[in-house]
Amino acid sequence: MKPISILLFAVLCQSALATHSPENIKSPKNIIMIVGDGMGPSYTTAYRMFADNPSTPEVEETVFDRLLVGMASTHPDMDTGYVTDSAASATALSSGVKTYNGAIGVDANKKPVQTVLELAKEQGRKTGVAVTSQINHATPASFGAHNESRQNYDQIADSYFDEKTNGQFILDVMLGGGWKYFIREDRNLVEQFKAAGYQYVDKLTQLNDVKAGTPLLGLFADVGMPWALDSTDQMRLPTLAKAAIRQLENDQGYFLLIEASQVDWAGHGNDIGSAMAEMHDLAVTLEWLEQYLVNNPDTLLVATADHSTGGLSIGANGNYSWSPSWLKNLKASPVEIGTQLMTAKDRGALATDLLGFELTPEEISSLSVIESDKPRPFHNAISKILDNRSNTGWTTTGHTGVDVQIFAKGLGSEYFRGHLDNTRIAQTIFELLRNKK
Amino acid sequence: MKPISILLFAVLCQSALATHSPENIKSPKNIIMIVGDGMGPSYTTAYRMFADNPSTPEVEETVFDRLLVGMASTHPDMDTGYVTDSAASATALSSGVKTYNGAIGVDANKKPVQTVLELAKEQGRKTGVAVTSQINHATPASFGAHNESRQNYDQIADSYFDEKTNGQFILDVMLGGGWKYFIREDRNLVEQFKAAGYQYVDKLTQLNDVKAGTPLLGLFADVGMPWALDSTDQMRLPTLAKAAIRQLENDQGYFLLIEASQVDWAGHGNDIGSAMAEMHDLAVTLEWLEQYLVNNPDTLLVATADHSTGGLSIGANGNYSWSPSWLKNLKASPVEIGTQLMTAKDRGALATDLLGFELTPEEISSLSVIESDKPRPFHNAISKILDNRSNTGWTTTGHTGVDVQIFAKGLGSEYFRGHLDNTRIAQTIFELLRNKK
Ligand SMILES: [Zn+2]
Ligand SMILES: [Zn+2]
Repeated sequence: MKPISILLFAVLCQSALATHSPENIKSPKNIIMIVGDGMGPSYTTAYRMFADNPSTPEVEETVFDRLLVGMASTHPDMDTGYVTDSAASATALSSGVKTYNGAIGVDANKKPVQTVLELAKEQGRKTGVAVTSQINHATPASFGAHNESRQNYDQIADSYFDEKTNGQFILDVMLGGGWKYFIREDRNLVEQFKAAGYQYVDKLTQLNDVKAGTPLLGLFADVGMPWALDSTDQMRLPTLAKAAIRQLENDQGYFLLIEASQVDWAGHGNDIGSAMAEMHDLAVTLEWLEQYLVNNPDTLLVATADHSTGGLSIGANGNYSWSPSWLKNLKASPVEIGTQLMTAKDRGALATDLLGFELTPEEISSLSVIESDKPRPFHNAISKILDNRSNTGWTTTGHTGVDVQIFAKGLGSEYFRGHLDNTRIAQTIFELLRNKK
Repeated sequence: MKPISILLFAVLCQSALATHSPENIKSPKNIIMIVGDGMGPSYTTAYRMFADNPSTPEVEETVFDRLLVGMASTHPDMDTGYVTDSAASATALSSGVKTYNGAIGVDANKKPVQTVLELAKEQGRKTGVAVTSQINHATPASFGAHNESRQNYDQIADSYFDEKTNGQFILDVMLGGGWKYFIREDRNLVEQFKAAGYQYVDKLTQLNDVKAGTPLLGLFADVGMPWALDSTDQMRLPTLAKAAIRQLENDQGYFLLIEASQVDWAGHGNDIGSAMAEMHDLAVTLEWLEQYLVNNPDTLLVATADHSTGGLSIGANGNYSWSPSWLKNLKASPVEIGTQLMTAKDRGALATDLLGFELTPEEISSLSVIESDKPRPFHNAISKILDNRSNTGWTTTGHTGVDVQIFAKGLGSEYFRGHLDNTRIAQTIFELLRNKK
């Protein structure tokens, strides 16, 4: 084509993509939604530096960079204010409605609202969740349950068995933590799911032996799964994601929610060491999915965060530097290191071994002076050493209101470009689902 | 068109936009580049909340939301580290090369590099800068000068007169602050520019009387211009931008750099009051330009930030809230209020008057106890009151490494989508400039 016709083509393309709503395109066969809980812009940027190969002059692009298409506002219902929790934001992402903090799949009046996962199920798609938290935690619960409070963990677990869509269980595949809630004195949901035809596994390695394409319940921890840094399978989210997709693939398509749940938990703990390890677990998952999309072009991948956590900043205290090298050789999570310190004979030696670098006398002294029978001061002391070494800043142990990124690839991904409110992400997925297959 | 053909069309469009580099489209006649100095994602999000109409249930979209197309990494040359200053980042944005912090239009070896503004000038376009800092400050200097150090303010000012492109001055229009550097004992650059045919004004109101389309030097302050909150013309950046465009418009097109310089300065001061006022000044500028683009579709607008400043967080200290209402009735900048406090008889009464809300006894006491002959403790005390009221967090008085947003509209704007390194922004503009007009 000549320049002028390409110009015309580009203009037509732009207006076509801008003005046509998704109703005109084919419905994606499979939809994979990913939530990086607590993963604001500082996390993806810090991860690029953490993953950077220091022996090359450039900073290598990450999978987040390749998939970036837009940003989302995350505020909850205005009666709650401007800063969301995971439940309100996950309900926005699952249902397209603003609600109050703590709400699980219900609107501001506590009325249940349909989720994109439920519509996908109603249409004959298989559905699943694969998360590193307990599977009845706020984010997965907001896609597969309805409850006035995220704190009602037992009720939410029960509802996964009791509530039916078209006479079927809402979730064909459930992978994550949660023995505490699914194997209780008053009710054993694992046995009930098994009796109803679900395979059940409680070790990640067993996922290889599961019969593909069948309903599956996999619970791998009492509550949340161990930190990535403490896991025998350090790539636990890719393991969960691949296993879930193996069970879900079928002619009618599927809807899968994947959550890197513990980015948020690291943020709450102001723990940059685990924050980067949890980001890496998610990045490897996305890299695998990026390839999966190449082979499955009728699939839509949309990834975002529910909010950011901790007020993480890359650089702090007036210094123009950030040094992720200190975070690269951790042999355990800062939480685990802190916990081990409580009973250690030589705190400095233990920390030096597990952090992977020689501590200064001041750093050793910051550990020696702690007198507490609670683990928190020990966790904090280890995180503080990593903050000082890396020059990381934090403003809160809670959430912040900054916009989060939207990452997308595959069929329909162009409709997630630019700024979208988080409710608009769900609304767009509803529209795509309602299109002709 | 039937759904299937639209699908095909969308796929073709996507691949066309993704794979064709800008070389195939027409060169924009006019290019307007905007830098929100220090304006990371927390600033644009906070501004949406600040600008929100609290009497409506939704949070209104801002001009930043309408123009968002991508995000940029900002790190300087890797020998410097991961956190940039304004000079290195502005040089990346002007020249497409990574350099060291402090570098003005020179590479890591201190060798001058061509800037997009210089190429535009070479091609016969008019050029200008309109900024709220002094016009020889790091960002505008990196587009129109070359110096090994941003600190060499006099040399940079001199070079605007001494260095010629094709025998012409590099900048046809210069609007901002800088008497201190342009009217010196050793050299009066204002008189030199006047003798060379430039009109000169030193009051914003005089901009109305300037003959359109002619070279113009407008200096309105000794160093940087007054804070937006302290300006008689509270919309000073729109005033500068409109005046610059009036001078620059011509058949051969123009390149204009606009900088909201003082978002960064508010960030350095951890001053959320001025941060929001400076953001508003920029937002109104962008809103005007958004309309200008409608009437001038052969113009490209690209706006971004050089980095973020202060580690600003929306919410802090474990509280899930942010309350911009306390920032909406300031009668002066927190810096000005702090300075006035130094000589005030009744500090509580003065602060109550100028902040626009009744202070608590604790807040009044936080002002009363200050004993200092330096203004900084007074500024900080006022900012602290606003931080506590709004629940704003900060981690540093310096810069942070978080990615910043890219906003674009007009001819060629689709090439700024997704993640781009900041050098790629300049490289894309070079490519667009080199295309056929
Ligand atoms: Zn959280
Ligand atoms: Zn700065």
